[in-house]
Amino acid sequence: MSQNLHTFENGFRVVTEYMPGLESASVGIWVNAGGRHENIKQNGIAHFLEHMAFKGTRNRTALQIAEEIEDVGGYINAYTSREVTAYYARVLREDVFRAIDVIGDILINPIFDKKDIEVERGVILQEIGMSLDTPDDVIFDWLQEQAYPQQALGRTILGPAGNVSNFSKDDLSLFIKENYNPNKLILSAVGAIDHDKIVKQAEGLFAMLPNATPFQLVKAKFSNGIKKVVKDLEQAHVALALEGSGYLDKDFYAGQTFASTFGGGMSSRLFQEVRENRGLCYSIFAQLSSYADTGLLTIYAGTSGDSVCELTDIIVDELKRASGDLSESEVARARTQMKAGLLMGLESSSARAERLARLVGIWGRVPPLAETVEKIDDVNLEQTRAYAERLASNGRVAMATYGPITESRSLNDVQKRMTD
Amino acid sequence: MSQNLHTFENGFRVVTEYMPGLESASVGIWVNAGGRHENIKQNGIAHFLEHMAFKGTRNRTALQIAEEIEDVGGYINAYTSREVTAYYARVLREDVFRAIDVIGDILINPIFDKKDIEVERGVILQEIGMSLDTPDDVIFDWLQEQAYPQQALGRTILGPAGNVSNFSKDDLSLFIKENYNPNKLILSAVGAIDHDKIVKQAEGLFAMLPNATPFQLVKAKFSNGIKKVVKDLEQAHVALALEGSGYLDKDFYAGQTFASTFGGGMSSRLFQEVRENRGLCYSIFAQLSSYADTGLLTIYAGTSGDSVCELTDIIVDELKRASGDLSESEVARARTQMKAGLLMGLESSSARAERLARLVGIWGRVPPLAETVEKIDDVNLEQTRAYAERLASNGRVAMATYGPITESRSLNDVQKRMTD
Repeated sequence: MSQNLHTFENGFRVVTEYMPGLESASVGIWVNAGGRHENIKQNGIAHFLEHMAFKGTRNRTALQIAEEIEDVGGYINAYTSREVTAYYARVLREDVFRAIDVIGDILINPIFDKKDIEVERGVILQEIGMSLDTPDDVIFDWLQEQAYPQQALGRTILGPAGNVSNFSKDDLSLFIKENYNPNKLILSAVGAIDHDKIVKQAEGLFAMLPNATPFQLVKAKFSNGIKKVVKDLEQAHVALALEGSGYLDKDFYAGQTFASTFGGGMSSRLFQEVRENRGLCYSIFAQLSSYADTGLLTIYAGTSGDSVCELTDIIVDELKRASGDLSESEVARARTQMKAGLLMGLESSSARAERLARLVGIWGRVPPLAETVEKIDDVNLEQTRAYAERLASNGRVAMATYGPITESRSLNDVQKRMTD
Repeated sequence: MSQNLHTFENGFRVVTEYMPGLESASVGIWVNAGGRHENIKQNGIAHFLEHMAFKGTRNRTALQIAEEIEDVGGYINAYTSREVTAYYARVLREDVFRAIDVIGDILINPIFDKKDIEVERGVILQEIGMSLDTPDDVIFDWLQEQAYPQQALGRTILGPAGNVSNFSKDDLSLFIKENYNPNKLILSAVGAIDHDKIVKQAEGLFAMLPNATPFQLVKAKFSNGIKKVVKDLEQAHVALALEGSGYLDKDFYAGQTFASTFGGGMSSRLFQEVRENRGLCYSIFAQLSSYADTGLLTIYAGTSGDSVCELTDIIVDELKRASGDLSESEVARARTQMKAGLLMGLESSSARAERLARLVGIWGRVPPLAETVEKIDDVNLEQTRAYAERLASNGRVAMATYGPITESRSLNDVQKRMTD
């Protein structure tokens, strides 16, 4: 394996890794901009822009963009998250140049035709509808809103329908100007690739892009709060969030370790107690969602309408219990799972391309695998228990419940039970 | 790459493939039994059994099953489809023996403890609730029911809540006896594995299993029909199914080719007309779902409640149009997409393990890649147009619509428009 990072004068970066034995490659551009780089009036524009990129450039129609990749059997897609927008493709070896050329074109030369903007509003309004009809999507949006009220990080990625109905070409251009600066763009390519060729191609496409004044990120502030929506669904959905670690925080890996022991797999405490012993849920998990400056330790479960109190109490009780009696073997298992997951993820070119881009975006470099493994190995039982203890004693909980709820705990109930 | 297939005297088969350069392996057992092997009273038992396998054996508790795999950083999971039930794991090289031992144990030695059955009913009832709350899940169940009414293939995999509430240990044992015969079990292992070692291990676990009288599959019969459910959702969901090919049929690849041109990607006709030109949908696609003796060419889209008629008409019109003016370049693109998809899929050990098991289950052997590529290359424009023509002229449509529908087409409307 050989990783290479090249930085152009304007800050645009290329990171690649050749993987022997592969006939294909995953390539893409990761932009360090997403939902949290929007102000309230812009909310939804990062995602709208991701859609509009595919609607045509000065060189290609929408159909030509799709055909150019699909004619050679590849696929091209994109996503928008709160901190990142990514445009990526998977193609065979001989089509890597073509894929980068298309992705470069849709990022640099979009035309934002008026008619296309109108059509795409309709598509995104349908996407919003789909999300609203998916209870275990919508509850996470509400949870995020409770955890970061009146902040960009607390708003949805799709944005409200009202914004989507009004975005204009100027709005799109302004967001690009503020956020798609070359020093926030990372080209990542993994698989059957040649680093030098890609750098040369990237030079022609991106090295001349000027930098403008970048958007200044506002530090996010966690808050407690609760949103309860009673609706005639089959399942009641319960989501809790506690203030966790950002990915730059020293205790990031302790947080990951705790999340894994608490609700990361079939042997985790929540799965064993809530599903295996009590049969209350089909889906239950805990995870640490990290951002640049903050993070959320999130717990989700779907249960029956009359089990919401029981479920909420168990989650709180298990959290408190973990801070006292989490065992050495549970922490060891979590460390092994993280390390094995890392190794297995490296066997996929697309997962690896994503990982390289994220690492460069966060650290400005690709930390050697051994460095990450060492950080995981450094997490011990004491730190993991202390992490659970901090979560529980913080006393502030963000919460959302949704469904045919007959009875549920108030925010006070939950916070009191947690700190008692 | 080296594939090996070994068949024991009792019919149990082991298929493996060593992939150089990997540190992990995907292993599992694919059982050629699923939802369509149930009678009406048994409906849901194949899936219930898949759950119960993880609840404990004569050698391991549920927690021990989970820990044994997760302690070494692996994961273990299972799924039930209409024709197949699979139990699989991904582990590092040194844990392949362990993973096969655990999977063998949960298949051969489950105990079906009474208390565990009670608990697992609750879990599966939650899973059913989750599915009912997911409109684009439930509509496919309704579509399947319309296409194969009063037949095992038309029933849901999870089964009705009434059945799930009543299954007993005897029901589970009977389904195993009827369906988990060694000649219907295939052990597939791909990645950092050693064929001879796996055969030796499999011999100890599976070579002594007796065969019983197997369940006789009833040939499925496609029917037309419509189910419309008006509900206050954000989106209206529309699904159509036409009688397509089984995977043993001569025109299977013509069907796959047509599905790809019609609604398989961004350059497909439905995506271009419905999403790119009209902005009616976020999600729209067509696919061929094949079974042993039949298949469904399925079209799905989510749209607004007042666009259901427009959307339905476009789908029908595009299908008729395709039979007349599908182009050489569209068919060529579909062939290339299938071949490239095949190659890219081979780069993942889990996708490859699944593929080997399915091929052995269907054909009793692993056809060389060149054979599959040849079959794809053999599909020409004439055959693909003829496939569309057959679909349209058949005149029988299964259909389901769900959501805030203001106006919609009757089955007669749709069938008449299609054959007119």
